[in-house]
Amino acid sequence: MRNKTKVGIGLIGYKFMGKAHSHAYRDLPFFFETGVVPELRAIAGRDEDGLKKAAEKMGWQSYETDWRQLLERDDIDIIDICTPNISHAEIAIAAAEAGKHLICEKPLAMSVKEAKSMLQAVKKAGVVHMICHNYRFAPAVQWAKQLIDQGRIGKINHIRAVYLQDWLVDPYSPYVWRLNKQLSGSGTHGDLAAHIIDLARFLVGEFQSVVGMMETFTKMRCSNDGMMKEVDVDDASVFLARFRNGAIGTFEATRVAGGNRNANRFEINGDKGSIRWDFENMNQLQLYLTDDPLGMQGFRTINCTESCHPYAAGYWPSGHIIGYEHTFINLAKELMDGISKGYSPSPNFEDGVNNQIVLESVEKSAQNGSWVNVS
Amino acid sequence: MRNKTKVGIGLIGYKFMGKAHSHAYRDLPFFFETGVVPELRAIAGRDEDGLKKAAEKMGWQSYETDWRQLLERDDIDIIDICTPNISHAEIAIAAAEAGKHLICEKPLAMSVKEAKSMLQAVKKAGVVHMICHNYRFAPAVQWAKQLIDQGRIGKINHIRAVYLQDWLVDPYSPYVWRLNKQLSGSGTHGDLAAHIIDLARFLVGEFQSVVGMMETFTKMRCSNDGMMKEVDVDDASVFLARFRNGAIGTFEATRVAGGNRNANRFEINGDKGSIRWDFENMNQLQLYLTDDPLGMQGFRTINCTESCHPYAAGYWPSGHIIGYEHTFINLAKELMDGISKGYSPSPNFEDGVNNQIVLESVEKSAQNGSWVNVS
Amino acid sequence: MRNKTKVGIGLIGYKFMGKAHSHAYRDLPFFFETGVVPELRAIAGRDEDGLKKAAEKMGWQSYETDWRQLLERDDIDIIDICTPNISHAEIAIAAAEAGKHLICEKPLAMSVKEAKSMLQAVKKAGVVHMICHNYRFAPAVQWAKQLIDQGRIGKINHIRAVYLQDWLVDPYSPYVWRLNKQLSGSGTHGDLAAHIIDLARFLVGEFQSVVGMMETFTKMRCSNDGMMKEVDVDDASVFLARFRNGAIGTFEATRVAGGNRNANRFEINGDKGSIRWDFENMNQLQLYLTDDPLGMQGFRTINCTESCHPYAAGYWPSGHIIGYEHTFINLAKELMDGISKGYSPSPNFEDGVNNQIVLESVEKSAQNGSWVNVS
Amino acid sequence: MRNKTKVGIGLIGYKFMGKAHSHAYRDLPFFFETGVVPELRAIAGRDEDGLKKAAEKMGWQSYETDWRQLLERDDIDIIDICTPNISHAEIAIAAAEAGKHLICEKPLAMSVKEAKSMLQAVKKAGVVHMICHNYRFAPAVQWAKQLIDQGRIGKINHIRAVYLQDWLVDPYSPYVWRLNKQLSGSGTHGDLAAHIIDLARFLVGEFQSVVGMMETFTKMRCSNDGMMKEVDVDDASVFLARFRNGAIGTFEATRVAGGNRNANRFEINGDKGSIRWDFENMNQLQLYLTDDPLGMQGFRTINCTESCHPYAAGYWPSGHIIGYEHTFINLAKELMDGISKGYSPSPNFEDGVNNQIVLESVEKSAQNGSWVNVS
Repeated sequence: MRNKTKVGIGLIGYKFMGKAHSHAYRDLPFFFETGVVPELRAIAGRDEDGLKKAAEKMGWQSYETDWRQLLERDDIDIIDICTPNISHAEIAIAAAEAGKHLICEKPLAMSVKEAKSMLQAVKKAGVVHMICHNYRFAPAVQWAKQLIDQGRIGKINHIRAVYLQDWLVDPYSPYVWRLNKQLSGSGTHGDLAAHIIDLARFLVGEFQSVVGMMETFTKMRCSNDGMMKEVDVDDASVFLARFRNGAIGTFEATRVAGGNRNANRFEINGDKGSIRWDFENMNQLQLYLTDDPLGMQGFRTINCTESCHPYAAGYWPSGHIIGYEHTFINLAKELMDGISKGYSPSPNFEDGVNNQIVLESVEKSAQNGSWVNVS
Repeated sequence: MRNKTKVGIGLIGYKFMGKAHSHAYRDLPFFFETGVVPELRAIAGRDEDGLKKAAEKMGWQSYETDWRQLLERDDIDIIDICTPNISHAEIAIAAAEAGKHLICEKPLAMSVKEAKSMLQAVKKAGVVHMICHNYRFAPAVQWAKQLIDQGRIGKINHIRAVYLQDWLVDPYSPYVWRLNKQLSGSGTHGDLAAHIIDLARFLVGEFQSVVGMMETFTKMRCSNDGMMKEVDVDDASVFLARFRNGAIGTFEATRVAGGNRNANRFEINGDKGSIRWDFENMNQLQLYLTDDPLGMQGFRTINCTESCHPYAAGYWPSGHIIGYEHTFINLAKELMDGISKGYSPSPNFEDGVNNQIVLESVEKSAQNGSWVNVS
Repeated sequence: MRNKTKVGIGLIGYKFMGKAHSHAYRDLPFFFETGVVPELRAIAGRDEDGLKKAAEKMGWQSYETDWRQLLERDDIDIIDICTPNISHAEIAIAAAEAGKHLICEKPLAMSVKEAKSMLQAVKKAGVVHMICHNYRFAPAVQWAKQLIDQGRIGKINHIRAVYLQDWLVDPYSPYVWRLNKQLSGSGTHGDLAAHIIDLARFLVGEFQSVVGMMETFTKMRCSNDGMMKEVDVDDASVFLARFRNGAIGTFEATRVAGGNRNANRFEINGDKGSIRWDFENMNQLQLYLTDDPLGMQGFRTINCTESCHPYAAGYWPSGHIIGYEHTFINLAKELMDGISKGYSPSPNFEDGVNNQIVLESVEKSAQNGSWVNVS
Repeated sequence: MRNKTKVGIGLIGYKFMGKAHSHAYRDLPFFFETGVVPELRAIAGRDEDGLKKAAEKMGWQSYETDWRQLLERDDIDIIDICTPNISHAEIAIAAAEAGKHLICEKPLAMSVKEAKSMLQAVKKAGVVHMICHNYRFAPAVQWAKQLIDQGRIGKINHIRAVYLQDWLVDPYSPYVWRLNKQLSGSGTHGDLAAHIIDLARFLVGEFQSVVGMMETFTKMRCSNDGMMKEVDVDDASVFLARFRNGAIGTFEATRVAGGNRNANRFEINGDKGSIRWDFENMNQLQLYLTDDPLGMQGFRTINCTESCHPYAAGYWPSGHIIGYEHTFINLAKELMDGISKGYSPSPNFEDGVNNQIVLESVEKSAQNGSWVNVS
């Protein structure tokens, strides 16, 4: 048995994302051999009661009610930021200065400026850094990337990507903290559009220019205290894009598309073939090849659970599907490999900055009503 | 047997659309009772050989090599225009002046100005007029319209509509007349985008403003004579829209989306439900209702072949599907009913004008790079 | 214009099947060139009022209230039998003796003995004969046949075929004549199982042995006159089969499978690939090939509307789908070609006899509870 | 923090099923609160090298190279049997006699007789016992059970169930130990048919009689040592069934259905609705209700990830899907609850015996060629 270095995780935030990340570190060694192995050393949060319960249930060895304590601890090698994006920059910069490796939830920051300062900090500190665009790590998406890189679908002309949710479809559903920009940092745009921007950058290439709009369909909602409160984040964000390689794209993110629980979907058309993916059937990739024999052409549905598919060999025999949480396990595997080998796997803070530039360009376009260069 | 008035059709153009329209008139009386019954009196075209063969095969009683002859004939009540759009205005205006009812292929004209002059002509002449947006007449689309009008999906927030074809996906496929704007009148935008604009106007409402772009991915193609020729029509047209009722939309039409043979698809999201349709499975409507019981919510796939579905009772028992050609039969039924009762069923030349305004607004936006009001 | 021989059709029965056949003859010349061209000369039925209306609407030149009159007429070349199967044999044998070509609805007869006497009659008379298993003539099914014959899916091991309807799912739906064996001739078994037996014979090969059961779930239903009546036909028929070539199969036909309007579906697995088809999306064929590259294997959905697909070139451009009625047009094309060239295209009365043998073997097995040889 | 009793697991077998069970125990406390909490105390196997590696990777505290050692250990409360079925009875009976709770892989035993002796042993010992039919524990399947129990689909008439795999589709794929009945215990019938029999018993009810056949398409395969070896287990098992409540069913299990990696699928039709499920999209349940409004009827696709769906609240927000491994976690939850409250949750050894009776009845029928009563 070869000697493995354990690395200590310090995670901030114990709700939805905190749970997803915790689980990933916990499950990683079960499925994969990695250069270094994560240990769930400490989780941080402000509400001690909830934190304590969560820490226990999720298997953390300790907890801290002030995230700054994590930076003091020698047994913590990696800081994982699962807080609202308003606090990302402060934490990340402090952690980098403390010499901690970093993994941060998306979007990276509140602005391009903030994002750049974070990137500068991790570069200066020489630590490993990643941003948590987990959907890249669905085996089907990774497989799509390989097929595209091999030229299987040729030169890309189109991407159409949507990220549709519906938890706000009812105009009478109550006001919650996520609808307050001060608390949540962003609305649909930062929450959902950020993901499909990342997928487009990963699979198609860099954005050149965008034009878009953002909309809040229900502008006032009733709070638990019976008061009507203003919603100051967007319900939907849609935009068109030109890519540097000549492709064009349409993008739509919304929280009011009834019947779409978590429909992160795209189709990419090249001059030799096409690819379709839908998160809700995330194990399947649809592939069309123009050079299939005449009369035998059609989208084929590939179940990306074969041992030749990315990450699949670590899990179960072919046809035995995996789910949402595995995208985080696969991402954690990359992080561990990055740390063991001394590089920052993509998507890292540079991707985070580039993503933020696109987000901000769309916002600018939504304000000024015309195309904005992404640069 | 009740006494029926026969009305004489004079159709101009005998290729794809001429065939679809001819078939519709021929089949209509088999499936439906209408106030007046069409007779295939004369078809017009320029190439006598091809025309003669087509006339015989399709069951036309006579043919004319000059469309003007049709206007002279007393036995012709309706002029059906299936020519490239460059000639629509001239024919329509002359026919209206000759007192003929009119049905015209889409897009109505080469410009808003031309379209308006056509509308003026038919109004002045007091003839019945329609534009051939056949996809409205899929039973599933008509059913969608009824459900929306009943308020089943509530206030509409989103439409995303695409019309994807792939016959130009290969950059080495040859140059053809449809790629010459002079001959074809328009590219993808007028050919395909016009259809989804019509569906949006039908189902969602009037456009308020648009922003878009048009793209020709392959700018030179090789002609049959071995010469490289410039493609001066668009391969793709994409745009965003705001509607007067507050809804927003994304639209994409393209001829280079490999694997999509004729994918005219839309999804509409209201605050009480959603609707999805895809022409390639045109008999099915997908419907999601937010007030289905908890845990039992999901898109249901309705096979719109029940006798309660629009037009379905004329055809076959439930589950026995119909196809593309039936959209034209249903449209022809409306035209006959309009003539017998003396009104111009929607979509008519007014719809054609409004559609053209949207088309032109998108073109303008594609040129000037910013939002354009649709008015 | 080349000289074509017209052949006169005399059709018996003017309800569902009469309508489907009438339409096919009417539409055939519009879409296809055939050696001889059908004319709708006379339709026969017993109820003069209904018959007259149907004749007029469907475009028949004349009608007869006694089918025997059709046999007397020199202008009738083909007798088309769309009556309940109880009368098939009498009509077919008389028509053959009168020298008429024959096309008969399925199942061919009430028993193997009867079917054989019909086959003997047409053979003796030297007339052309077909049985109307229309589902064979979906382009996707014909394409499946070609792929199988080319060895694309290798040696066949499995077929699983179902024909599911649901018009009797409600135990309180009323008693109708189709539930009376005396009037209808057969229940689900003869109505629906006959079709999937034909598809299996067409695509897989001859049956060797079967074991099955038949079931009537609702044994009494209320008639319009308020009386409870006994249902003496089967609601469902299911059986297993061994084929002469070593394949095995499962078959199920039912009228009580809620949500399945007309779900005629099969999947065939060979040792090099698989094929799936579902009538409700009849234009699509799903094809899996084991020799697709590793990681790129999956069922591909082929839209069988390309000009290379059987019959498709006669209709519309690729992606423009056809429907139920076109299966009859395609079958009528074969009949006309058979008559013009002097042979009986498959499926003909020999197929009808072989189909009947399978039907009867299943019935026998359902009675005696064990495997029955098909011979 | 409330005081929890830990229970020690001793698991025998460390391959595919050993991995699935190990993971379930490991992950259970992360997602669910249970009365007792499993600890991975010891894993047993014969090959020390492989065992040691597996133990370490999967997080077992210790290992034993003789399963009998597990029975000696006081810290082991539950014996989990993941060995080939030939050894189930010996281990289970010994474990029961040693007072250990039991969870056993399916099929329970090599024969009904053996299965009954196992049931007798656990009953005599008074220990908790379960059999690992994990597919029951997909949330969509549990939800189907609740809908059926509430009468939502009415009286059941039909089930059609298939379990299709394709890893033996190639007749030239090599001989492996699973094709040796001596080593594997059973072929497709015990491996796959056992699962769909369980689902049918769970959702429809008890079997009354069956008729079936079993087939080995490729009777000789080449072993790694270059020798041709006889395959003495079945490639496929198909059968018809009658249920005590009047329903009828068709069942098919095979390893040679190309393109079907792990297609465990069923459709159930009642007189008020229907249910469809397919493991490869295991989060989705399709539901059809006959009392939906006219024209709005259709199968709805329910994403069973809402907090109201069974087990779903323990995992992720709605729309964030789970996979194969979660069926084992859910089953482990039931086992823990059973142990903490002192009962044997279904499916237990009684279910195992009843399942074995069906399996054996089909085998008997395959031999004697007629219906066999299940009793």
